[in-house]
Amino acid sequence: MSQEETKNGLSRRQVLGTTAAAAAAGAAGVAGGVSLKNPGVITPAEAQTASSARPGAANKTEVKPGELDEYYVFFSSGQTGEVRIVGLPSMRELMRVPVFNRDSATGWGLTNESRKILTEGLLPETVEFLKDKGGTYQNGDLHHPHLSFTDGSYDGRYLFANDKANTRVCRIRLDVMKCDKIVQLPNQHTVHGLRVQKYPRTGYVFCNGEDRVPIPNDGKVLDDPKQYSAIFTAVDGDTMKVAWQVRVDGNLDNVDADYQGKYAWATCYNSEEGVTLAEMMAKEQDWVVVFNLKRIEEAVKAGKAEMIGGVPVVDGRHGSPFTRYIPVPNSPHGINTAPDGIHFVANGKLSPTVTVFDARKLDDLFDDKIQPRDVVVAEPEIGLGPLHTAYDGKGNAYTTLFLDSQIVKWNIDLAKRAFNGEKVNPVIQKLDVHYQPGHNHTSMGQTKEADGKWLISLNKFSKDRYLNVGPLKPENDQLIDISGDRMVLVHDGPSFAEPHDATIVHRSKIDPLHVWKRDDPFFADAVRQATADGVDLMVDSKVIRDGGKVRVYMTSAAPAFGLESFQVKQGDEVTVHVTNIDDVEDLTHGFSIINYGINMEVAPQATASVTFTASKPGVYWYYCSWFCHAMHMEMKGRMLVEPQAT
Amino acid sequence: MSQEETKNGLSRRQVLGTTAAAAAAGAAGVAGGVSLKNPGVITPAEAQTASSARPGAANKTEVKPGELDEYYVFFSSGQTGEVRIVGLPSMRELMRVPVFNRDSATGWGLTNESRKILTEGLLPETVEFLKDKGGTYQNGDLHHPHLSFTDGSYDGRYLFANDKANTRVCRIRLDVMKCDKIVQLPNQHTVHGLRVQKYPRTGYVFCNGEDRVPIPNDGKVLDDPKQYSAIFTAVDGDTMKVAWQVRVDGNLDNVDADYQGKYAWATCYNSEEGVTLAEMMAKEQDWVVVFNLKRIEEAVKAGKAEMIGGVPVVDGRHGSPFTRYIPVPNSPHGINTAPDGIHFVANGKLSPTVTVFDARKLDDLFDDKIQPRDVVVAEPEIGLGPLHTAYDGKGNAYTTLFLDSQIVKWNIDLAKRAFNGEKVNPVIQKLDVHYQPGHNHTSMGQTKEADGKWLISLNKFSKDRYLNVGPLKPENDQLIDISGDRMVLVHDGPSFAEPHDATIVHRSKIDPLHVWKRDDPFFADAVRQATADGVDLMVDSKVIRDGGKVRVYMTSAAPAFGLESFQVKQGDEVTVHVTNIDDVEDLTHGFSIINYGINMEVAPQATASVTFTASKPGVYWYYCSWFCHAMHMEMKGRMLVEPQAT
Repeated sequence: MSQEETKNGLSRRQVLGTTAAAAAAGAAGVAGGVSLKNPGVITPAEAQTASSARPGAANKTEVKPGELDEYYVFFSSGQTGEVRIVGLPSMRELMRVPVFNRDSATGWGLTNESRKILTEGLLPETVEFLKDKGGTYQNGDLHHPHLSFTDGSYDGRYLFANDKANTRVCRIRLDVMKCDKIVQLPNQHTVHGLRVQKYPRTGYVFCNGEDRVPIPNDGKVLDDPKQYSAIFTAVDGDTMKVAWQVRVDGNLDNVDADYQGKYAWATCYNSEEGVTLAEMMAKEQDWVVVFNLKRIEEAVKAGKAEMIGGVPVVDGRHGSPFTRYIPVPNSPHGINTAPDGIHFVANGKLSPTVTVFDARKLDDLFDDKIQPRDVVVAEPEIGLGPLHTAYDGKGNAYTTLFLDSQIVKWNIDLAKRAFNGEKVNPVIQKLDVHYQPGHNHTSMGQTKEADGKWLISLNKFSKDRYLNVGPLKPENDQLIDISGDRMVLVHDGPSFAEPHDATIVHRSKIDPLHVWKRDDPFFADAVRQATADGVDLMVDSKVIRDGGKVRVYMTSAAPAFGLESFQVKQGDEVTVHVTNIDDVEDLTHGFSIINYGINMEVAPQATASVTFTASKPGVYWYYCSWFCHAMHMEMKGRMLVEPQAT
Repeated sequence: MSQEETKNGLSRRQVLGTTAAAAAAGAAGVAGGVSLKNPGVITPAEAQTASSARPGAANKTEVKPGELDEYYVFFSSGQTGEVRIVGLPSMRELMRVPVFNRDSATGWGLTNESRKILTEGLLPETVEFLKDKGGTYQNGDLHHPHLSFTDGSYDGRYLFANDKANTRVCRIRLDVMKCDKIVQLPNQHTVHGLRVQKYPRTGYVFCNGEDRVPIPNDGKVLDDPKQYSAIFTAVDGDTMKVAWQVRVDGNLDNVDADYQGKYAWATCYNSEEGVTLAEMMAKEQDWVVVFNLKRIEEAVKAGKAEMIGGVPVVDGRHGSPFTRYIPVPNSPHGINTAPDGIHFVANGKLSPTVTVFDARKLDDLFDDKIQPRDVVVAEPEIGLGPLHTAYDGKGNAYTTLFLDSQIVKWNIDLAKRAFNGEKVNPVIQKLDVHYQPGHNHTSMGQTKEADGKWLISLNKFSKDRYLNVGPLKPENDQLIDISGDRMVLVHDGPSFAEPHDATIVHRSKIDPLHVWKRDDPFFADAVRQATADGVDLMVDSKVIRDGGKVRVYMTSAAPAFGLESFQVKQGDEVTVHVTNIDDVEDLTHGFSIINYGINMEVAPQATASVTFTASKPGVYWYYCSWFCHAMHMEMKGRMLVEPQAT
């Protein structure tokens, strides 16, 4: 066996790169049709490529046993539907937070507490759709994890993320690292790009509707794309309700916001409003669309919005006062606000350029004093397939080149000078990554506190970088040291599908609890029910029968549950509440009933509950599924299910 | 915020350690009641403790960007229900293999291919139990991952593991790293310990029934523990059917097998056959039970077994020809066969001792020529809470001490000499681990090819070793270099619940495919159906209506599906088959239908299918959920669902 060799003969990079690069080069050729100024000329020889790590540099990633990482990284997981917390620079996964997925270990999707979160924000038609499917979706596609801001930087309260698969937005509480709210967006079909209001605080969570469908999407209109629309949604991050929506032209892709609390901006492809690949790529240009938050708020307040699906919707298609559509080359993808509070960049995807905008010009644009393209201050050609840009806070930008499989470091100021005709090359360095990078992120780089230390490149293919694990390969999150003049690749990090996006946060911004507080809203319903039943959850273990419903309350303290057994009748609806009365940090208990498909996590000082029908008679042992004590194996009891009289 | 300090004031280790150590010390005090020989005296000063890593040693774990790990580690994930493939020494997670859990990314539990595997081995009463619950369990508790053997070492065919939560055993094909068979065991209530036949090949998969229940467990007997029994099962690893079962005394815990193909041995606690913690700990001794494979096979062949639940069951309780019960101190836990093919060790848990057996004496024991304890050749006192033992192939053993939070290195030969009265100390070194270790494993250490290079300690608590991630903490897999005279801790590896057990395999033993073969049995049903419909999956994209059933066949080749849209009627049962005709390594596609809760993975050259009811009318975009191409965002189409006539 030779792990080092590619068995197919052809390298993945050769095959995909060559084909797609040819297509993109075609697109690039016509980008000039937008009559852009000629960007600084790139001499290939100048675009130096460092293809491997600097010897010795990798030690910077070492976090010795017992030492702590300096940063938290919050990774999305794409179609896995969870959020992952990773330590940087060690790139070790510290925790998984289940959100849109189902989790066997914690009982996410099974416990009453998680089911409430998964179901209460669903649209009525979804509740109907899922009623014979267990009541919850079982999958999600979590793309963009972004933390709440106050005054331009992270405030440690929340993380928000989207579900592209089932058009939802979630919120994770950073004090306990659990999802506490999920809302499904009406009218909109998928939510793709998601970012949050940076100033004065979050505030709004901006959610890009990507696909165009009829509104309402009830089957009356089917194959008539002219009657389709995409929607832009602002969710209120405090209430997790939809604040307002905007109907737009084209398909929204990614989104970001300013540092003034005035604007949000989104890339927008498929200006053709086609429904096939050929149609969507037909035009030479698409748009960046800018949303004027104040004007939208005023219109909604003045009752000028149409109420559709229970939420206010304004018409933001071409010609409206709420939006401006700025032409950019074909199919822009990522859009990223720079830490200087002034610039934002749209990434060309099918054009080898990025487009740099000056946010200070937007007031004039909305007042019709200037033309849309007057907001553009640079448009350098930087390489093939630019997707996303990150910043170091020192005026440099780092853009992923999907087709070139590189990160290109370029300077905003040099790009502006080149745009003004100066013969300068804004490209500083190109670094090979492995392979096909999508999102990237710099340490604190999406805030005013960008610190210019680390960059991660989230690569979609790993191919030959790891031991072969069969036809399904991991992806590859590469860690790059950007603290010096040149980027240095220091670590390859494999990951399961798919670390779509990530946010790097200094540990000083995050301060979670070590044990739950007993008055936490997460299990307030259980406390309420117990109080009504005269049960003190921290003390009592008892069984309450209420007709055909049985409520079982038990404590757990290593190595014993409060009940050594309980008896129910076949057909009873049984709710088991387990309260972990241990207050020792890290002493989590579990509760699993054998052959009943039941398991849940109960962290220190928490209560968790599960409801099921005791449809099978017999003796069923329950046990602690979270290793807790030397006598953990003996921490168990019996559920005795009396057979129905026949 | 101070991550370094323990916020509760009390350290986890102090609290648990002190309490439990007191309990265990009590148990240890009475262990002498079995009238064991006095083991070698441990002087605490001699039991040297290395509490931190040797400076500079950690570089041994560095695998530079682009380099490959030397070993695969197959981790279980406990209550997460999956198998994880990790590279060693980098300790990076290379892949997750969903098994008993539900996986949003791959569609495990949703696709027809995975549902067949999850359902076809279920017991009839479980099929009945799950029929209004979606037909599959949604959780599992995967404890012990063990690879198939040929002639005493790994042969790269399969991995087997148990589900403690729902009494199942799975098999993973190592050529594609997917689960291909799951069987639920009849009569038995939970399966805990699992290991496999090492010689001449696997052969048998040995499955320990832990909890005692009535047989049959149909509710006729409830709170009458005297009528409960535990079961030992041998599954045929080739067919994944139960070969035979043995009814035993006590609760079976862990299991292992010899290198001769003659015996399996299991630890067995709760010789009291109690149902409460106090009852289970009452006696001063429990057992190791040895199973005589040939005698059992002969009895089954001769029709002397009772058929219960459709499988042959022999009675192996005390006095039977099939088993021998060897007394050992209270509540033994792990049991581990040494690479020398001669010794096996039971770990004391509530006794500070391990018990060493000589397998060569078992023939005489079964022939009643010697007494059970005559098989014991050493019983050294090594520390508090011994749980599992691993080997280096050089005569040394490494035992986890749960209560002491240490690994103790000791020598088998010295232990035997001490047992014979010589004043030698078998303990060579003790190393602190963090904290409360369960299983451990050495590189190739469960085979005849144990190479003595690496040891991992799977610790149940991490507490203060990582950035705080809230009340639920990761566990801690520590990597220890054992290649020198002394153990050196080189890496802390956080992991999500819970890396219960692991197997370290040299990469020369594993050789997976890079792309699927088209004649793979995994999707043979889809191929068969397509052939019946006159469809060539590699070429055709078409829609076949068959009454109210619609079969949609489409290819996927980056960046397009074979169908840009398809139309069905509300209420149709729709099956979508997607075939990835790309043969480029790592070019996996996905298929997700927005707001329909549908997502699945389709790796290169694979076919995947999903069946659902089109109960919601309207336009629903489907898209490729696995990033595949620069135009990946545009790889989509529309499912048009015509409303039912009202």
